[in-house]
Amino acid sequence: MSVDLNSDVGESFGRWELGDDAAMLALVTSANVACGFHAGDPTTLRRTCALAAQRGVAVGAQVGYRDLAGFGRRFIDVAPAELTDDVVYQIGALDGICRAAGTRVRYVKPHGALYNAIVHHEAQAAAVVAAVRAYDPELPVLGLPGSVFLAAAEEAGLRTVREFFVDRGYTPQATLVPRSQPGALLHDPHEVTARVLRMVTDGEVTAVDGTDVHVNAESACVHGDSPGAVAMAEAVRAGLEAAGVQLRPFVEESG
Amino acid sequence: MSVDLNSDVGESFGRWELGDDAAMLALVTSANVACGFHAGDPTTLRRTCALAAQRGVAVGAQVGYRDLAGFGRRFIDVAPAELTDDVVYQIGALDGICRAAGTRVRYVKPHGALYNAIVHHEAQAAAVVAAVRAYDPELPVLGLPGSVFLAAAEEAGLRTVREFFVDRGYTPQATLVPRSQPGALLHDPHEVTARVLRMVTDGEVTAVDGTDVHVNAESACVHGDSPGAVAMAEAVRAGLEAAGVQLRPFVEESG
Amino acid sequence: MSVDLNSDVGESFGRWELGDDAAMLALVTSANVACGFHAGDPTTLRRTCALAAQRGVAVGAQVGYRDLAGFGRRFIDVAPAELTDDVVYQIGALDGICRAAGTRVRYVKPHGALYNAIVHHEAQAAAVVAAVRAYDPELPVLGLPGSVFLAAAEEAGLRTVREFFVDRGYTPQATLVPRSQPGALLHDPHEVTARVLRMVTDGEVTAVDGTDVHVNAESACVHGDSPGAVAMAEAVRAGLEAAGVQLRPFVEESG
Amino acid sequence: MSVDLNSDVGESFGRWELGDDAAMLALVTSANVACGFHAGDPTTLRRTCALAAQRGVAVGAQVGYRDLAGFGRRFIDVAPAELTDDVVYQIGALDGICRAAGTRVRYVKPHGALYNAIVHHEAQAAAVVAAVRAYDPELPVLGLPGSVFLAAAEEAGLRTVREFFVDRGYTPQATLVPRSQPGALLHDPHEVTARVLRMVTDGEVTAVDGTDVHVNAESACVHGDSPGAVAMAEAVRAGLEAAGVQLRPFVEESG
Repeated sequence: MSVDLNSDVGESFGRWELGDDAAMLALVTSANVACGFHAGDPTTLRRTCALAAQRGVAVGAQVGYRDLAGFGRRFIDVAPAELTDDVVYQIGALDGICRAAGTRVRYVKPHGALYNAIVHHEAQAAAVVAAVRAYDPELPVLGLPGSVFLAAAEEAGLRTVREFFVDRGYTPQATLVPRSQPGALLHDPHEVTARVLRMVTDGEVTAVDGTDVHVNAESACVHGDSPGAVAMAEAVRAGLEAAGVQLRPFVEESG
Repeated sequence: MSVDLNSDVGESFGRWELGDDAAMLALVTSANVACGFHAGDPTTLRRTCALAAQRGVAVGAQVGYRDLAGFGRRFIDVAPAELTDDVVYQIGALDGICRAAGTRVRYVKPHGALYNAIVHHEAQAAAVVAAVRAYDPELPVLGLPGSVFLAAAEEAGLRTVREFFVDRGYTPQATLVPRSQPGALLHDPHEVTARVLRMVTDGEVTAVDGTDVHVNAESACVHGDSPGAVAMAEAVRAGLEAAGVQLRPFVEESG
Repeated sequence: MSVDLNSDVGESFGRWELGDDAAMLALVTSANVACGFHAGDPTTLRRTCALAAQRGVAVGAQVGYRDLAGFGRRFIDVAPAELTDDVVYQIGALDGICRAAGTRVRYVKPHGALYNAIVHHEAQAAAVVAAVRAYDPELPVLGLPGSVFLAAAEEAGLRTVREFFVDRGYTPQATLVPRSQPGALLHDPHEVTARVLRMVTDGEVTAVDGTDVHVNAESACVHGDSPGAVAMAEAVRAGLEAAGVQLRPFVEESG
Repeated sequence: MSVDLNSDVGESFGRWELGDDAAMLALVTSANVACGFHAGDPTTLRRTCALAAQRGVAVGAQVGYRDLAGFGRRFIDVAPAELTDDVVYQIGALDGICRAAGTRVRYVKPHGALYNAIVHHEAQAAAVVAAVRAYDPELPVLGLPGSVFLAAAEEAGLRTVREFFVDRGYTPQATLVPRSQPGALLHDPHEVTARVLRMVTDGEVTAVDGTDVHVNAESACVHGDSPGAVAMAEAVRAGLEAAGVQLRPFVEESG
């Protein structure tokens, strides 16, 4: 048994630091590295990618809206053709940085409001899929099971990778409990670790109403910049290793 | 006999249009395409690169300072390590756009104040050279003969391509007449065409004092966004073709 | 009889020029000057405000989303409290420029996607109203008759000024014909001038279905940056003057 | 006896937090608040200015180069006329935010690389002076004793306020020891407090070579975002209060 652990890193910008990337890169197997449109200056990106390369962590392009002031967390009604070009630009930029850092972009994971929008927004979902295909149709995309995005990506022939959020509550329909509702966020590392382990071994998670729901995911997402993020990731990794679950990227490192 | 004609294109940004890229791409053989830091949004870049690909025009990365408000025309005292990363990011971004547009970045030409700075500024010149090497040591760089930049690039093993400015006056020392002095700019298409032709055939140009100076250049730069830019480029191209000079990129289109 | 003519100006940015501000400022009586978030660098703004001051044209703050790449034409789901602060910042910035240019901001007119959003979006409309009240409750706002924005502004005690679009088609319900439908845009300066004149004298405009609808507006908006913008504004101004309609700002120039 | 304590605050940007503004605003009497060009989003600025207003701390405009990525710490060769407009824009923007927060901009202090440049750069110094005069000739400027900036401001009729850096070493010529040299930075709160006290009471400070130099300053600058910044400011404030030195802004709060 094995699973991938992914987290957002590379989200500092110039003078402003965010998260403990070095600590997270010692714990995860896939790193969603920001691409400069909502976070991440080139020097931050290069340092992050170089560290990921050293540790054998796979680098993914954390693409988002062009919105530094909003950290990519505000929906922007970008025309789909422009969104495609914005995403291609970001993947290319990060891939360039990766080349200089001794690795390459291995997958794409949309960020923030773009991630949320393309759960439902068909035109923007198709725009992101078109960008990945145009850049490199061999790149897998990481996203939310059941999203319009993953469906469109699959239909377009991209490899899709489903993710599980280790500290988010699930509804009986296997969707995330909205952040405004009770049970949306889990804070106890023990409980979280047990949930991940069960998801990995049985493909099941306990929903907020106590029922079991099936969640089939190849990657588990741990948050990178919240207080306690590193401690939570450490607990999850230790729990999985203790149970004999192998932690490895969902993409193989190519030569 | 042959020569390359290069020009800056892809310098629009969002709502703001600059230059007549379609017209210039019908005339030049190498296109210095902006990379988004001082000009060029992703959609402009993609349209420009797609048109260049259609016409067999080689795309170069027109890298510059991060300064949209100043169009990259103001010196910025960027730390060399950060400048390297900024340049890698820009080359990667444009190369990503090129992939989506059916071509690739074939060379690098610094822009504006960065171009001028690295005529003399050793640390920034070395930083740009380091960026090109880190991204792809096979990429040639286009620059000013006699500049610290070309010297550093050559020493680092990069292919260097020297350029001639078709509408600039030259001193007896083969440097450009500063814009603040008489004879800095030539406006007559006939005179300019005759100069280019002489530079191509004899490697000589008449300096402002009437003496002949040797200028050995593989590429002739025509301006892209000044009034009369297209007419000037048309005259130069027609004059060269009439004299049997072949116009072709200094880099061969790869398969 | 009198009316105000307003237009967007000050929308250049650095190297990129847009519209013929000098020509428009000779024709209109109120100038909606961009504030730097979606267009307008400080030097453009100062030159524009100085010219407006010279000509006795009232300056309004053309506030918008923080989106240079999209020219403020893309809806952004900004949190209302942040939108309020963004708008206060923009009004203050332009008012500072006005002080240096010998005038002051006399009114506020939202731009682009923000203008359209707050026709219906109650939270963002309230946010803009809160910004104007916080900056100066004596400043009038210019907007679309029937919009949530003008209703909220009126309720908050702001002076509201209703505007008429000289080159847009109207529905029998006195709303604008969507741009995607026939009759959305009028191109004939004679027809447009006649419409403006009728709106000013009778408060009536012919809707797309041929019926007359009542449009009570204190200001007529002429576009600033489309091809033919200056010619259209000249025709409208000449037609109004020939009919004895006085053209003057809806706000009095204060001492 | 009295002195002013000033510090940089309001330097967060969107998701990125920097410094402990609430703690610093409980200790200083003048707050140099960023203006959005190198740091400070409008919501951060409003929160900071509101807190300053509550605590009776005078707000100054911390104006800088347009350079978010470099935090205003890189020299930019901006044309003086453009720099003037950039500075007017920033002062106006912050003053607008202040109006909404119940206070006003009371002085101007250039930041980072601009602060350093105008110690010597006459054209940029004159540009900043011109901006303050154009915005409000009653606004004092805070700067380095002996700088070209303060000299130009004085000549232009502005009130100039000289500042002392509590944790920087001084040369026998009363200039700052360059950061690259030994003795540039002081880290011991006791030593720093003793120095400030001596500067306030005697106008003397011990230079790196052990000699006494005369430093006549109305304001003492404590750093806001370094590790230990709050502890250092607390020590300085406590030491001054224990010695009976009154801490108050160099500008009086107007009605």
